[in-house]
Amino acid sequence: LVFAVKSGEFEIDKKGLIKEVRHYRQNNERKIINEFIEFLSIPNVSADTKNIRKNALFIKEMMEKRGIEVKILETKGNPVVYGELNVPNATQTLLFYVHYDGQPVEPSKWIDSLPFKPMIRKGKLEAGTTIPKPIQFSAIKGPINEEWRIYARGSSDDRAPIICYMAALDAINKSNIRLKNNLKFIFEGEEEAGSTNLRECLVTNQKLLKSDILFMCDGPGYFSGDPTLFFGVRGIVSLQVTVYGANTNLHSGHYGNWAPNPAMSLAKLLASMKDDRGRVLIDGFYDTVVPLGEGEKKALNNIPDFDDKLKSLYGFLTPEDPQKRLTHAIQQPSLNICGIRSGWVGNEARTIVPSLATASLDIRMVKGNEGSYMAKKVVDFIKKQGYFVTSTEPTLQERLSHAKVAKVALRESGYKAYRTSMDLPISRSVIKALYGYDSKTVMIPTLGGSLPISMFSEVLDIPVIGIPIANYDNNQHQANENIRIGHLWKGIETFATIFMMGKAQK
Amino acid sequence: LVFAVKSGEFEIDKKGLIKEVRHYRQNNERKIINEFIEFLSIPNVSADTKNIRKNALFIKEMMEKRGIEVKILETKGNPVVYGELNVPNATQTLLFYVHYDGQPVEPSKWIDSLPFKPMIRKGKLEAGTTIPKPIQFSAIKGPINEEWRIYARGSSDDRAPIICYMAALDAINKSNIRLKNNLKFIFEGEEEAGSTNLRECLVTNQKLLKSDILFMCDGPGYFSGDPTLFFGVRGIVSLQVTVYGANTNLHSGHYGNWAPNPAMSLAKLLASMKDDRGRVLIDGFYDTVVPLGEGEKKALNNIPDFDDKLKSLYGFLTPEDPQKRLTHAIQQPSLNICGIRSGWVGNEARTIVPSLATASLDIRMVKGNEGSYMAKKVVDFIKKQGYFVTSTEPTLQERLSHAKVAKVALRESGYKAYRTSMDLPISRSVIKALYGYDSKTVMIPTLGGSLPISMFSEVLDIPVIGIPIANYDNNQHQANENIRIGHLWKGIETFATIFMMGKAQK
Repeated sequence: LVFAVKSGEFEIDKKGLIKEVRHYRQNNERKIINEFIEFLSIPNVSADTKNIRKNALFIKEMMEKRGIEVKILETKGNPVVYGELNVPNATQTLLFYVHYDGQPVEPSKWIDSLPFKPMIRKGKLEAGTTIPKPIQFSAIKGPINEEWRIYARGSSDDRAPIICYMAALDAINKSNIRLKNNLKFIFEGEEEAGSTNLRECLVTNQKLLKSDILFMCDGPGYFSGDPTLFFGVRGIVSLQVTVYGANTNLHSGHYGNWAPNPAMSLAKLLASMKDDRGRVLIDGFYDTVVPLGEGEKKALNNIPDFDDKLKSLYGFLTPEDPQKRLTHAIQQPSLNICGIRSGWVGNEARTIVPSLATASLDIRMVKGNEGSYMAKKVVDFIKKQGYFVTSTEPTLQERLSHAKVAKVALRESGYKAYRTSMDLPISRSVIKALYGYDSKTVMIPTLGGSLPISMFSEVLDIPVIGIPIANYDNNQHQANENIRIGHLWKGIETFATIFMMGKAQK
Repeated sequence: LVFAVKSGEFEIDKKGLIKEVRHYRQNNERKIINEFIEFLSIPNVSADTKNIRKNALFIKEMMEKRGIEVKILETKGNPVVYGELNVPNATQTLLFYVHYDGQPVEPSKWIDSLPFKPMIRKGKLEAGTTIPKPIQFSAIKGPINEEWRIYARGSSDDRAPIICYMAALDAINKSNIRLKNNLKFIFEGEEEAGSTNLRECLVTNQKLLKSDILFMCDGPGYFSGDPTLFFGVRGIVSLQVTVYGANTNLHSGHYGNWAPNPAMSLAKLLASMKDDRGRVLIDGFYDTVVPLGEGEKKALNNIPDFDDKLKSLYGFLTPEDPQKRLTHAIQQPSLNICGIRSGWVGNEARTIVPSLATASLDIRMVKGNEGSYMAKKVVDFIKKQGYFVTSTEPTLQERLSHAKVAKVALRESGYKAYRTSMDLPISRSVIKALYGYDSKTVMIPTLGGSLPISMFSEVLDIPVIGIPIANYDNNQHQANENIRIGHLWKGIETFATIFMMGKAQK
């Protein structure tokens, strides 16, 4: 293994640390969960500014109890909660990011519980059922099982890491372990509303936030439940392609197989963009990809294979490229059709030749890809297929001068791709800190989804590594959001280990 | 010309006839229009049964004035008005069909007029304007211009032919011309409501309706404004094809370029169905087409080319097959995409891999094609592309057993294709009757659209030929429906000529 640990001494320290933290947690499970339930009882929908401030103040109080120096950073929107814990002789500063706000809620879709009345279920709510039944935590006596789950908005996304940080600090403190690193925390209050004011807050507080690394603790961990590190995210750029036929829907009898059918033109255009194994045929689509290093490739191959389970879960037999694992596929840029609209189907179907056909596409980018470059490649490809391409509604003159007319609109600027090398000294330290832990760490070079990580890296000029701790099946952004208690326990141990990580060796 | 007229005597008769009819019309224009306006003032929406009956009685009275023997044929729905005019020594019986009911109306969309308050405009209502202004006919003095139009529901579709029949009979009668053929008329009162009771009425009155030929006088004539005969219509069968990916929409970041994308699968499937010039690549698609005869091919080539005007009007440069004229293209079966739905586009776009993609297709059939055979060819083709095809929602087991899964549903049984040969003795007589008329007759082997013609031909066991007389730009089924007065005049002459057509020569 390329990330093999060389120092025997360090190994011993870590094992001891985990033993202490686990011991502390086992003796304080009820206390930890009680504090979490109190926290989760405060509504945290981004738009509910009054309760959002209650969350901020609750977090401030929790942090101050642990000796963290807290500042509420006011923005044009919801407050950012900032905290720091400085240690004498610390040689590194670690910055942790999560958001404390949550997605809007539809209480009627919560089964036998409510978003802000946290309840325990003794297992995962089975799809299409109401069992296991929710129980008030205070009504449960005796030992707590790690398969149980807490159901509440924000239980996973994204209040769980905050509770884990607090418990990890308590454990370190109670065990008289000396903290090695300065810790900083930044908790955003409007991530689910688009992080509109975050960049300005980071810029304004650049000095305050100065650190060696930022840990992004948002989102779910890997399917296997093992501690997960991710070193990058895919960027995204969205396009909308519209192709034109006649300027009005035409009767499919009177004009069918004479009037050009834009639904067919679009089908042919889209079909020409990818081969039968999902490889994008657009010239230059893969040219700017920064290849994975050897270490990253090895890490990738070490990720437990969850594909068969996912295929059963999602009800399909064969992925786009039958020979590529999910984790490997998402290390490449993707071209995805998000939607197609032309004419009508089903009960609304009309026997017409539609006047236009529209496809919504997204391109997920990896390190090296740049949004406007990728969009231009798509436009160039469409032109190469014989289309006159415009970015605005084509004029009659344009329609009458070109056999094939397409409008391509960039739907949004999107997020940039980002990837921290696993070979950076600080990356190696993070990996080392988790190495030898009782479950294998899953190290993902690039997550499939997109997060505004590059914003942190650009404004603060530091590497970013992701440490998500929630269970993958947490119903994020939906009703019945939950966290598996075993994942909370693992989160506490993971963060304690990171808090105590060794100094990056150049 | 294959339809060249051999008898000089007949020529002379016809020229004399047209001269007489035109003379009669010129001297009675105001009377004809007044009667039409009275007729058009009776609301004729199919669902308005009270007014529908008023229409029937008005028609009955008009016919009886011309010596036609009238019967109201009651059905489970609106009454059918039947009439016959028998002539001593007639050797042929001609049956004429139109419907007297009209489409529902949205009065607010009628510009400065109302559906059942007929008005004259001194020209075509220009798109996007309110001119020329509507004028009450009674307020107009002096000569009537054939470019004027009457605006009212049913002015073209389908009450105009009825007025033309009446005026043609008046002209023949006033000119002391002896009618050569027995005439029968069948006027339906619920065509716009789906002709639900027509078949039963035809079956019940089979004997009464016995004739040598049925003339279907519904719909607009050819774009050029010349008298139009059509000898067939395309049939239609509609299909809906759904292809499947995962059983839920998946995040396009986490799963994009791994989870199969059914929008792309559908694009590839549809794209494979036709070549770049619109030829259908489905095996057997053209195998059952009964080819056009030599006469039909010639007639087709004689149709004035209106394609450039249509392309300008509809705003496109190149038809599906750049080398095929509209009139020629519609002589073949077509495969048309009426609509595609998958995921979302525009403001609703979501960054997902959609779980399914659906296309609504219609096949327009020509003589020889049969709906269930054509649908089977499509299914066979989809199977050949590697799909497991089901007619119901696929089960999880089916999804997990096949890489590609499609559902194909037949949307409706549709209308059958129909074509009367132009070489039948009676067809030749009809063609001959119009030959030598001052404008060239447009003879269309098969109309692009679908009409329930095969029902008449099956139940009554007679050939059917279409004689539509309305202007093509009559706003049929829409607000501001109208008829050009010149088309009315031509309609009178056309029907008079047909009433007087010669005996079919074996």
